[in-house]
Amino acid sequence: MPIDPLPIAQALIRCASVTPADEGAMAVLEGALAPLGFECTRLRFGEVENLFAIRRSGGNGPHLCFAGHTDVVPPGEGWTHPPFAAEVEDGVLYGRGAVDMKGGVAAFVAAAADAVADGTADRGTLSFLITGDEEGVATDGTTRVLDWMEERGVVPDMCLVGEPTSKARLGDTIKIGRRGSLSAEFTIHGTQGHVAYPDRADNPIHRLGRVLHRLTERPLDEGTEWFQPSTLQVTTVDVGNPTNNIVPARAFARLNIRFNPSHSPSSLEAWIRGILEAEAPRHEVSFSLSGDAFLTEPGPFVEALRRAVRAGTGEEGALDTGGGTSDARFITRLCPVAELGAVGTTMHQTDERTPVEELRQLAALYGAVIRECLG
Amino acid sequence: MPIDPLPIAQALIRCASVTPADEGAMAVLEGALAPLGFECTRLRFGEVENLFAIRRSGGNGPHLCFAGHTDVVPPGEGWTHPPFAAEVEDGVLYGRGAVDMKGGVAAFVAAAADAVADGTADRGTLSFLITGDEEGVATDGTTRVLDWMEERGVVPDMCLVGEPTSKARLGDTIKIGRRGSLSAEFTIHGTQGHVAYPDRADNPIHRLGRVLHRLTERPLDEGTEWFQPSTLQVTTVDVGNPTNNIVPARAFARLNIRFNPSHSPSSLEAWIRGILEAEAPRHEVSFSLSGDAFLTEPGPFVEALRRAVRAGTGEEGALDTGGGTSDARFITRLCPVAELGAVGTTMHQTDERTPVEELRQLAALYGAVIRECLG
Ligand SMILES: [Zn+2]
Ligand SMILES: [Zn+2]
Repeated sequence: MPIDPLPIAQALIRCASVTPADEGAMAVLEGALAPLGFECTRLRFGEVENLFAIRRSGGNGPHLCFAGHTDVVPPGEGWTHPPFAAEVEDGVLYGRGAVDMKGGVAAFVAAAADAVADGTADRGTLSFLITGDEEGVATDGTTRVLDWMEERGVVPDMCLVGEPTSKARLGDTIKIGRRGSLSAEFTIHGTQGHVAYPDRADNPIHRLGRVLHRLTERPLDEGTEWFQPSTLQVTTVDVGNPTNNIVPARAFARLNIRFNPSHSPSSLEAWIRGILEAEAPRHEVSFSLSGDAFLTEPGPFVEALRRAVRAGTGEEGALDTGGGTSDARFITRLCPVAELGAVGTTMHQTDERTPVEELRQLAALYGAVIRECLG
Repeated sequence: MPIDPLPIAQALIRCASVTPADEGAMAVLEGALAPLGFECTRLRFGEVENLFAIRRSGGNGPHLCFAGHTDVVPPGEGWTHPPFAAEVEDGVLYGRGAVDMKGGVAAFVAAAADAVADGTADRGTLSFLITGDEEGVATDGTTRVLDWMEERGVVPDMCLVGEPTSKARLGDTIKIGRRGSLSAEFTIHGTQGHVAYPDRADNPIHRLGRVLHRLTERPLDEGTEWFQPSTLQVTTVDVGNPTNNIVPARAFARLNIRFNPSHSPSSLEAWIRGILEAEAPRHEVSFSLSGDAFLTEPGPFVEALRRAVRAGTGEEGALDTGGGTSDARFITRLCPVAELGAVGTTMHQTDERTPVEELRQLAALYGAVIRECLG
């Protein structure tokens, strides 16, 4: 009889852990994991609670890490069931985090308990990297736990992030990468003057036009085997000149790039700086990186996940790199990382919910993942 | 002994005729011209006083029209001599309009009086087209007097506009044309969307970038024999999007073109519309024409002016088409028109002034013009 993930999920949902609040969520996990032989370490960075829990077997078997978060986005108004009550009605569990991703964390805890019970866990090492700062700025969360792990030589062989990647049916999608996001804003300086005497002025809008043209005239790339093409969108240009006989002194613009691993943040910065140097030498530019791109090339780990998906759900586990950023972008520096989890339709919405049966299927799927990865 | 223009100039300056006020300026002219045999017609359009005065001789001699204005720009603050007192100190006449162009009007009145006295005026027809709306919007001034003249079949053979064209020394510059000025503003519509899914959006800034590129990528022309190249200046681009993850719905831009006669307002409009149609089919555009370009090709009239300049001042009378617009842009539809007048250094400035001696030289120069043109 497999362990039921429902009560664990309910206990987690009943902690109103809107980022960065914890409200006892990590304690729930410690209470579930410690009896299974996990060594639990609470890691508080700033105002964020994090938890690293590890269960080592005697031998040299592989180390599978499960990464997730217990923080949730604010519930907002209009719920038919209270967002932190974890009520079940007609076989559906309601609550903030039911999908993203307390349900996923609970499912993996249940799967780990089964693996301990049937001895699978003894074929290697299992660990949990749980943060309370995934939905926020993510500076005191996963990335600092990874630093802590590296300092201690704790490096998994593979990591599964339990984000709700499934689109329509559980297991239909495995994310093996995400695009990065880089923003830039710049001011181009010219020389103010009268429109009738443009030779005495230097029009920053004309320079901006040439910069825009070079930034957008051709695609950044053609896409890669696993990624759609990178895209650049200019989101605003502003001058605010009220008169039509004066050439303005400056022009401002802002843009965002969603990029695949054929670029790095520094290669994109250098490209933009080069265009600005050439077309508008007098400028100020600043960059802000929301997340680097990452890709886990399909290999043994991804193949193990696909076998688990086929065994556990009958789905194909299509490999995908779409969507926004996740903490997988940090983990990629340590080991192969991929994301597989619940159907994400209601995540971040009012009445976030999951069928209880699907939560149990997710626990079974994670059980298959543990068997495939430690096998 | 030639007639002195100084008292006429002083009488005009003492009328505080800031556009569209008259304050008796036209009456001063009527008082001076009627005794010389000029038939004077006051033409009031809207709130603007205008004056047409004509002296016909019996024969079929040529008709030279002098065009000018008695309105002035506001004096502003900081004068060392009151702007409407017409004081003379150390041989210099101070006052708003001393240069632009009550001094010029007075000089031509004095020259006409001399021409009547010595019989030169009887070799043809002399007329004055004087408006009180040149410094303003110019809708109830020269252009309406020209309509009135045409209705009556009064069409001069040539027209001299008495604007202060001289740059450093009296007579150094004759203006035979001016560039036109056309403004356009347009809004480009796109489709709002999230930067991560640009295929579902349509970025109006990228369209604007292509429009700006095509508008500015090459010169409008290389200039003509008499004109410098036309110029286009974009004066503002504005979107006002505060967020960097949203593709905006629209982008706005405004521009001004200073154009020589190798373009017409309609050819420029068609060119801009064509670029917008091609690069941004969903747009709104509006145009506003401040003045068409004009050129009086050098011919007998211009040659007569240059002979008069050489005779009256010893200068060469360089032909020029620089600077802003003047009422000559309207007159060009009736007859050859050129501009010749005082040194313009202090026009529109505090302490606008002219040496009295230079005012008298201007009267002598205009006397030479009358002799050359009616000769
Ligand atoms: Zn999440
Ligand atoms: Zn003037």
